[in-house]
Amino acid sequence: MGIDAALLELETLLGDRLSRAKAVRDQHAQSETHLHAGPPDAVAFPRTPIEVSDIASICARHGVPMVGWGAGTSLEGHALALHGGVTIDFSHMDQVLEIRPEDMIVRVQPGITREALNTALRDTGLFFPVDPGANASIGGMAATRASGTTAVRYGTMRDNVLALEVVLADGRVIRTGTAAPKSAAGYDLTALFVGSEGTLGLITELTLRLHGQPEAVSAAVCAFPDMGAAVNCVIETIQHGIPMARIEFLDAASVAACNAFAQMAMPLQPHLLIEFHGTEAGVAEQAERFGEIAAEHGSAGFQWAARTEDRARLWKMRHAAYRACLASRPGCQGWVTDVCVPISRLAEAVEETQADLAQSPVPGPILGHVGDGNFHAILLVDPENPAELAEAKRLSGRMADRALRLGGTVTGEHGIGFGKLGYMQAEHGEGWAVMAGIKRALDPMGLMNPGKLVRPS
Amino acid sequence: MGIDAALLELETLLGDRLSRAKAVRDQHAQSETHLHAGPPDAVAFPRTPIEVSDIASICARHGVPMVGWGAGTSLEGHALALHGGVTIDFSHMDQVLEIRPEDMIVRVQPGITREALNTALRDTGLFFPVDPGANASIGGMAATRASGTTAVRYGTMRDNVLALEVVLADGRVIRTGTAAPKSAAGYDLTALFVGSEGTLGLITELTLRLHGQPEAVSAAVCAFPDMGAAVNCVIETIQHGIPMARIEFLDAASVAACNAFAQMAMPLQPHLLIEFHGTEAGVAEQAERFGEIAAEHGSAGFQWAARTEDRARLWKMRHAAYRACLASRPGCQGWVTDVCVPISRLAEAVEETQADLAQSPVPGPILGHVGDGNFHAILLVDPENPAELAEAKRLSGRMADRALRLGGTVTGEHGIGFGKLGYMQAEHGEGWAVMAGIKRALDPMGLMNPGKLVRPS
Repeated sequence: MGIDAALLELETLLGDRLSRAKAVRDQHAQSETHLHAGPPDAVAFPRTPIEVSDIASICARHGVPMVGWGAGTSLEGHALALHGGVTIDFSHMDQVLEIRPEDMIVRVQPGITREALNTALRDTGLFFPVDPGANASIGGMAATRASGTTAVRYGTMRDNVLALEVVLADGRVIRTGTAAPKSAAGYDLTALFVGSEGTLGLITELTLRLHGQPEAVSAAVCAFPDMGAAVNCVIETIQHGIPMARIEFLDAASVAACNAFAQMAMPLQPHLLIEFHGTEAGVAEQAERFGEIAAEHGSAGFQWAARTEDRARLWKMRHAAYRACLASRPGCQGWVTDVCVPISRLAEAVEETQADLAQSPVPGPILGHVGDGNFHAILLVDPENPAELAEAKRLSGRMADRALRLGGTVTGEHGIGFGKLGYMQAEHGEGWAVMAGIKRALDPMGLMNPGKLVRPS
Repeated sequence: MGIDAALLELETLLGDRLSRAKAVRDQHAQSETHLHAGPPDAVAFPRTPIEVSDIASICARHGVPMVGWGAGTSLEGHALALHGGVTIDFSHMDQVLEIRPEDMIVRVQPGITREALNTALRDTGLFFPVDPGANASIGGMAATRASGTTAVRYGTMRDNVLALEVVLADGRVIRTGTAAPKSAAGYDLTALFVGSEGTLGLITELTLRLHGQPEAVSAAVCAFPDMGAAVNCVIETIQHGIPMARIEFLDAASVAACNAFAQMAMPLQPHLLIEFHGTEAGVAEQAERFGEIAAEHGSAGFQWAARTEDRARLWKMRHAAYRACLASRPGCQGWVTDVCVPISRLAEAVEETQADLAQSPVPGPILGHVGDGNFHAILLVDPENPAELAEAKRLSGRMADRALRLGGTVTGEHGIGFGKLGYMQAEHGEGWAVMAGIKRALDPMGLMNPGKLVRPS
């Protein structure tokens, strides 16, 4: 590939917004996980979709790989430049372009983070609900089909991205979807690019669905005798049509970590954290009915947090759970697993995982989004110890195999990147070959984020 | 193409479930619309996915087109065999395969109709909400990305199909999606096949999301001084987070047709029909709040229908609106238009359409799904009068152009088929070429429902 010639052209295009500095390149070779790769040859900081298109045209002409970069918070190595080339960092494209309150949509650039977006929306009475925990970029969240704590009520990025502008591998710019709430006009290209992890194109603009900020919010925490009871409580709540805005669980090991980290004193049992959004009367009714169902399933220590400060404390604890787990084993690194199963199989999946962990030297507190059947074991490994890394890989593999056996998926929300490439054949069979065919159709030279999601060619 | 050799092989495979009878072929050359095509060369009635795969293999080997057929209710000619070949009628594949109440999902074969499915679900406390009006097949609804009156609350087929089994053009069988509620594992092939109109593969099994039958239902009808007031009422209701299960509008011309057809006496003004689903208390609260908002927007003649029989009468009237419109001009045929715009532009879109109609000899009552920005003018044409057909085409074209100008789409729910092929370039630009690339990747010989959705090659 003609990397030198490409970089000369890119420098002419971008000036000092093309960086070959070692520090900048190294910064774009980092990930929060055990996955590593060398740095890209250069990092580009475009300001406009036209510049992104020009970058793609230059890279295509010289056969240079292109890797998108949002906030660097992905967990499966999505943004690492496995084959070198140019990393395209969207941090200079972080604007809200248009808020349309009547249509409850917003147009944004891909580099804006979800927290910055919600700050910009604060006075509109609207918010963007998808919350993966990390303050990820919206473009990155779309590219990985992110979700998180609120998916049970508001859906994932699949459900909340209405339209996209995308730069293709050869520099062509397309628009997918419209500002209308639905369409039956041809293939759903928006859904194809959401979750495509930068392997089909670079997202340069997104139109997102917004939701009304709830009038009233109520949250609660309660303990259950075992996972099965907690899961059955949630199943019954869903079947009764009681709309939970969040429904999270922590296993006893996660509870212990949170107790230590946040000076709390929850009993060492599985816990559910729940939140309702609605009107004052609606939330009160939902809370009461949930309380009744939970009691039937043996819940104890039921604590409502209707006051904002109590609720903030509760969710701060939940969002700090990852750090709490890390703190429970000083010097360790988190190997964050992510599987998703039908909710009827969730208790089984968690309990079998716990049985694996009980026999392993690697600790792994479990937490997850019970309403979606999605959970994570935070495997706490010594990053310098190859035996522990191998053990984490083994445990993670068993979780993935189990998820498939139970009718689920090897990743509910973290994506494939290259960390989970090895499970794609097992999950999709011949469907993985179809994905490769689509990849070839849109990116025949294989320059868009090579080495990710599809079978290496 | 080796049609004769293919038919011999298909006869060996299917016996008398391959029909070359003229009556059967002619029956599969009919559509409910102005669109016409000759009959297929034969009609196959497979019973299993393996038979569908074998049919595809045989057709692929001999270069014979394959066209899927559900209930024949599509409105843009999707199921017509434009280039001859074999129509694959799924009426013998109409079974419920598995109901999983805890996971709120059901696995079905594509030939089951939505009414038969809901009958099968009646005792489970669950239902499948997507309701396009016609008693369409579930496979056909998925293929056209159907929606209808309940999309504002429960979403379209895009949102309610969780997983598919699909037979590809060369006979390969793939499974897309899983029984887990979400996944981030690779390209969203489920979303790609939903709405692909049989041009990428034949759907042989679907896993659908179900919803809890609401405890309480309340409905109402009320008149508004004009479209703008009705639309603003709906926008405000949505912004307040009041969850409408259905929100339909009828213009004065539709009201006149319904009055005559169903012996009602609604005032000749735009009307909204609304329905709420929830608990007794929740529905009562929502109804009260909606009533307040409607009053602020000048509504009159507000009538609640909390009793089942009153509600049934209301929705029977809505569902009969199409027939009522047809009956208002004896001997006419309906040319049903379908556009969708951002809700903030809906009043404008409807009013400009009404202005067009006021100057046209062709009558066109308007009704639609106001919560989605989706509406239809039922153009009442004399099918023997070429001038009227040309005028309907002109009016329909102006509606499509207007929808695009207002940031919407040329079809909210009826799809492209070949009736709307002429608008695809204007809506998608270079994106339409991307669709053609995907089509070539999955169906290089162009045998799956040729002549539909993508640019004719």
